[in-house]
Amino acid sequence: MRVSQSLIPIIKENPAEASIVSHRLMLRAGMIRQHSAGIYSMLPLGLRVLNKVADIIRREMNAAGACELLMPTMQPIELWEESGRGGYGTETLKAVDRHERTMIYGPTHEEVITDLFRRHIKSYKSLPLNLYQIQWKFRDEIRPRFGLMRGREFLMKDAYTFAESEEQHQVQYDRMYATYFRIFRAMGLKVIPFKADTGLIGGDQSHEFQVVAETGESAIFYDRALEALTSADEIDVAAIRARYSAADEKHDPAICPVVHEDLVQARGIEVGHIFYFDDKYSAPMKALIKNRDGVDMPVKMGAHGIGVSRLLGAIVEAHHDEKGIVWPVSVAPFTLGLVNIRQGDASCDAWCDEIYARLNRANIDVLYHDTDERAGAKFATMELIGVPWQLIISPTHAADKMIEVKCRRTGAVEMMSLDAVVERFLVSSL
Amino acid sequence: MRVSQSLIPIIKENPAEASIVSHRLMLRAGMIRQHSAGIYSMLPLGLRVLNKVADIIRREMNAAGACELLMPTMQPIELWEESGRGGYGTETLKAVDRHERTMIYGPTHEEVITDLFRRHIKSYKSLPLNLYQIQWKFRDEIRPRFGLMRGREFLMKDAYTFAESEEQHQVQYDRMYATYFRIFRAMGLKVIPFKADTGLIGGDQSHEFQVVAETGESAIFYDRALEALTSADEIDVAAIRARYSAADEKHDPAICPVVHEDLVQARGIEVGHIFYFDDKYSAPMKALIKNRDGVDMPVKMGAHGIGVSRLLGAIVEAHHDEKGIVWPVSVAPFTLGLVNIRQGDASCDAWCDEIYARLNRANIDVLYHDTDERAGAKFATMELIGVPWQLIISPTHAADKMIEVKCRRTGAVEMMSLDAVVERFLVSSL
Repeated sequence: MRVSQSLIPIIKENPAEASIVSHRLMLRAGMIRQHSAGIYSMLPLGLRVLNKVADIIRREMNAAGACELLMPTMQPIELWEESGRGGYGTETLKAVDRHERTMIYGPTHEEVITDLFRRHIKSYKSLPLNLYQIQWKFRDEIRPRFGLMRGREFLMKDAYTFAESEEQHQVQYDRMYATYFRIFRAMGLKVIPFKADTGLIGGDQSHEFQVVAETGESAIFYDRALEALTSADEIDVAAIRARYSAADEKHDPAICPVVHEDLVQARGIEVGHIFYFDDKYSAPMKALIKNRDGVDMPVKMGAHGIGVSRLLGAIVEAHHDEKGIVWPVSVAPFTLGLVNIRQGDASCDAWCDEIYARLNRANIDVLYHDTDERAGAKFATMELIGVPWQLIISPTHAADKMIEVKCRRTGAVEMMSLDAVVERFLVSSL
Repeated sequence: MRVSQSLIPIIKENPAEASIVSHRLMLRAGMIRQHSAGIYSMLPLGLRVLNKVADIIRREMNAAGACELLMPTMQPIELWEESGRGGYGTETLKAVDRHERTMIYGPTHEEVITDLFRRHIKSYKSLPLNLYQIQWKFRDEIRPRFGLMRGREFLMKDAYTFAESEEQHQVQYDRMYATYFRIFRAMGLKVIPFKADTGLIGGDQSHEFQVVAETGESAIFYDRALEALTSADEIDVAAIRARYSAADEKHDPAICPVVHEDLVQARGIEVGHIFYFDDKYSAPMKALIKNRDGVDMPVKMGAHGIGVSRLLGAIVEAHHDEKGIVWPVSVAPFTLGLVNIRQGDASCDAWCDEIYARLNRANIDVLYHDTDERAGAKFATMELIGVPWQLIISPTHAADKMIEVKCRRTGAVEMMSLDAVVERFLVSSL
């Protein structure tokens, strides 16, 4: 992408509206813009990160045997009356259509998925089943704040699991539990699981996942052994569950089983939540299956959410420095940033055009800063945006047909040929 | 994907609710399900087609220099009051939030993009600019019908172009015009352009694009020469505009310049629309740029839409037979359908598992029909769904380690090795 053909409105000063670092940096880097409280446009750079985060989630969910679909944002209120949730209070945004029917902008989709299930699935033979979507939702928060961290219109991955028995559901639950570590790890995040309350959605078994970040919203306590266990290649669910972790309000030093030296006190940001709620929706909505004895019974269900847009905030909270964002490569808006330090110089322009065309042909993400801004401003922009590597082109480099490659994280600089750059960053086309 | 892990609710009889073939076939093939009038879930197969259609649009839009972003579904009504549209009548779905502020579920996004533009772009130097999104929209149609063809919640590609002069905008307009032929052609569609009214959105110059299909919603008339011109490798905009085309209500045989033998009478489905509306939004909303003389002037704008979810209906209208859908390969939910004709037979299961794993590793789309239904039902399902090629595995084929490959469109059958199948269908990993 060329900067000249995009919308990347950089802000030099810290915006007054932003009180936390991720909100501040995503505004400054031109990734998001607010239209009304808690409602944002994803500008080109923000959208690219959002899509990369969503694609990591898709990859791991599909590998776990889950299947993607997409439910509508607007739901008939009748389904909510049937399930007994009734309308979910003041956080639900309601609209009345031209035929005077009330609809809800879905804050979650338990009712809709249960309705789909009961219309089509009648037997234990079709189970287990794990259906998920990545869809925009709306919660009319009383005080939306912190940018994407607590928005009103937000993107969520919500998976719904269906089982014939508690044993079958436990397998699904544990698979989601393990999958979540793989998902967050692929985005460069360290997460700790916590046993959680089941809240408004209700149910029996529930865990939430918190990203560890210095600037996190709440204090957390956990056994240091969890750091190794949750980042192991093979996730050992029992072993992890046996270890202590507690959020601030539940942590009681008097009964904490972990010795002081092994207890980590940190701050966390909630990014995921898994639930088992049995027949809470399937019983009132009559989502029945014939079990192995030929008897009709309500299907056993769970729901497993990840705050997709919220994750962008969490990643920035965990990965930034005084110059801006330091995206993990897997979710960076672009892998490479091409900086022409003398735009308008014929040899620099020609060499940049050649590099840009070659990288695009090789499917390597590159943002070409092709405006007439001065070099210093271009470097500052690339550092603020957090592109992992800059390719710097000066008249000397153009004459030598060489590229100065600078790493955002370490600052290390290396001179490379175009062939070597392509070889090094070729990821998606081999 | 395994059929056993998905939700593909096949319907054998024609559903009473569906009066046109695309609606009927998409329901029968388990691609979509309605929740309330004109509001659908995209089931796993339907979502895969939707994503492929959207990705073709993205590829061609990006190649034309357009840049993707994503605006929110819910818009503050104040922007609509500022532009003078005020709320757009009864088709607009409105919601009132907890602070008694009225929001609109966006049926289009002219106001939001104009607001983004005026906040960030101040000079002709940042032009031309083409920003687009692929986003869900809502129109509270008085009579939603025909499945995805006339839904209330629908997916649309909307691009907005910004220019400093009429000349610069004409270049953008013509580029979108040519790009649309490339987009539709890549989905196996023949489209004819028509000079159009500007309607509620208002403006000066406008064309709509209609897919030619026997079952189309409206009668159309055009010069036969347009068929070759619109499918040429290089789109010649003037040459196309010089030829006659007219929708039913505008066609007057008395003044039609085309001789009878060259005049095609067909039926069409509207799938795209491009507009130039100058300063209709930028003047009242004060989206001003400094021009080359240093004078502030309202930026000149255009909007360019494609009905993304509607296209699924249009493609099925153009590509089906008595057995079901015949998807063009580029938008098929899966390229290949693997049919195990004796599920439970150890050698068939093992050979299918080997084929399935190998194809997945090679990134070749494959739907594995792994349930215990009888072979006849599996073939009928694959034909109804419209998977372009079936890979058929019998005990004999398993013993020989061979694959019977059957083409959906022609019915031609060929025996191939797994290596040969991989070689033939390897598309995305080379």
